Amino acid sequence: MTEMPPEPRYDVIAIGNAIVDVMAPCRDELIEELGLNRGGMTLVDAARAEELYAAMGPAREISGGSAANTLAGMAMLGAECAFIGQVADDQLGAVFQHDIRAVGIDYDTPARAGDPPTARCLIFVTPDGERTMNTFLGASQFLPPAALDDAVIASAGILYLEGYLWDPEEPRRAMRRAIEVAREAGRKVAFTASESFVIDRHGADFRALMNEGQIDILFVNEHELASLTGENDFETGVARVSAKVPVLVATRSARGAIAIAHGERAEVAAEPVARVVDTTGAGDLFAAGFLTGYARGEGLERCLRMGAICAAEIIGHYGARPEADLAALVEEKLG
Amino acid sequence: MTEMPPEPRYDVIAIGNAIVDVMAPCRDELIEELGLNRGGMTLVDAARAEELYAAMGPAREISGGSAANTLAGMAMLGAECAFIGQVADDQLGAVFQHDIRAVGIDYDTPARAGDPPTARCLIFVTPDGERTMNTFLGASQFLPPAALDDAVIASAGILYLEGYLWDPEEPRRAMRRAIEVAREAGRKVAFTASESFVIDRHGADFRALMNEGQIDILFVNEHELASLTGENDFETGVARVSAKVPVLVATRSARGAIAIAHGERAEVAAEPVARVVDTTGAGDLFAAGFLTGYARGEGLERCLRMGAICAAEIIGHYGARPEADLAALVEEKLG
Repeated sequence: MTEMPPEPRYDVIAIGNAIVDVMAPCRDELIEELGLNRGGMTLVDAARAEELYAAMGPAREISGGSAANTLAGMAMLGAECAFIGQVADDQLGAVFQHDIRAVGIDYDTPARAGDPPTARCLIFVTPDGERTMNTFLGASQFLPPAALDDAVIASAGILYLEGYLWDPEEPRRAMRRAIEVAREAGRKVAFTASESFVIDRHGADFRALMNEGQIDILFVNEHELASLTGENDFETGVARVSAKVPVLVATRSARGAIAIAHGERAEVAAEPVARVVDTTGAGDLFAAGFLTGYARGEGLERCLRMGAICAAEIIGHYGARPEADLAALVEEKLG
Repeated sequence: MTEMPPEPRYDVIAIGNAIVDVMAPCRDELIEELGLNRGGMTLVDAARAEELYAAMGPAREISGGSAANTLAGMAMLGAECAFIGQVADDQLGAVFQHDIRAVGIDYDTPARAGDPPTARCLIFVTPDGERTMNTFLGASQFLPPAALDDAVIASAGILYLEGYLWDPEEPRRAMRRAIEVAREAGRKVAFTASESFVIDRHGADFRALMNEGQIDILFVNEHELASLTGENDFETGVARVSAKVPVLVATRSARGAIAIAHGERAEVAAEPVARVVDTTGAGDLFAAGFLTGYARGEGLERCLRMGAICAAEIIGHYGARPEADLAALVEEKLG
């Protein structure tokens, strides 16, 4: 592409899992009793989901899904957003649809009839605020390439892809096609690695995409960075990946985050939080803040600060959808 | 009855609406724009529920229902509880079932097949923490008398009835029968008036029940007391009703509550709250604290204090199901 692409209609379009989170606090001991992967995300089948739900305390349902959470944050920060993801034609699907549209995100993927039901993520939150996620993917894994409207994808400045969704086959094909469409249209492709296990299973794909220059912006945490590079040393891993992707954002939980963009490096400390209630969505909202700043052409450090502010908001309460007015928070802290 | 009834298996059995709350913060102006009854509970049909949901911001789903909320509080305080209420055989019904059983309440009412779906209450929470409720009763209003097991009702020390459920015909018949069964077994009948509109429509029934000595414990707020007696003066209303019911508990929001039991009077101030986030369930949890104390044979003032502590917990966060350990809270404050 040598021509400039036309002014984007959306700042970002994301493809991700369409999930409702089912969250409850739990004793530390329960994580062991149930044999859960503390702090991680585990895919579960319907029977295991039933078993875990039965063992869970009284819960609340809040829409989730990694990329959808990121978009909700971006929309609250004023970005124009569209989402693609598969729900079933059931009550939880209606909840997901409502919540994502209610923040002003365009979301038109038709609900899928019949089984399986809408995806849910059973989230056990221990007293330290750590979330342990168990995802029943349900309808979410049947997102067909046909659900993608090329013209809409081409009309977004950034295509944002969720690594979790790389695992099931149908959505992976859909995402590969979306990458082609976006690149053809001269748009940026952003990717969040999501979880080490995804990289363990599909690292070759991700490395190939990076080597081919298909990824413009990559979000990883330090564990994912290590999985991706096979390097336990953080800085070595950063150097390795930043040679391949124009913009790398690496988060380190309480130790803040760094970004390297076209050779420039910036770092930010974690934003102080009065009490860590529930870490669900911290990475998703970090990406929301960063990407909104990036889409607006803000400086790298400000993008990181926006990410840190959004992440701090989300871990101060239950659920991975923002409760506070993120735009006002950013304005208050950064002016 | 002159014989002593056998030791109860349950401290309380409640009959109430089986509802999932759908809650979202909202601007003050939206209440007027949508023509809502600010601070009240309004019954809505399916079409109006759709319309209001579409106008609502991103929401969260938390099990609710007045009597069910009260039981959840009582169970957390250590009471043995059973619940009767009608859900549909759908995802929100499964959510309600899960949440009530997860606090240790026995709940065996079979889910109802087909339409209508499980009840939901669309709750708009204004910045002052006031909740404006719009209830689509769905399956809840089809609780059949056949769902009542006489032996189970007779095995509970207290039968607790929710005024809201007096409105639809089938549950009203079920509740009338439950009162007969409980009285025949020498048990107490407790009743919460729920809302002025219920009294406006069914005040004659309630007054008849009181006059016949069918109600042992009555929970009202000051508005309901005024509707019930036609007396705007609080003390006059209290005197009028307490002549008819052995135990009267009258709550006055921020002005605390009073109880008159067998001629003895006690008062309590409202418990301080750092920030009123959402008043949904304040009355329900007041009843939970009071009734748990009463079932244990605590003194009247302590029962009121337990009510005030539980009410303060619930209004400090979203949702009408307790988040803190209520038993620990009561222990901490009252020893």
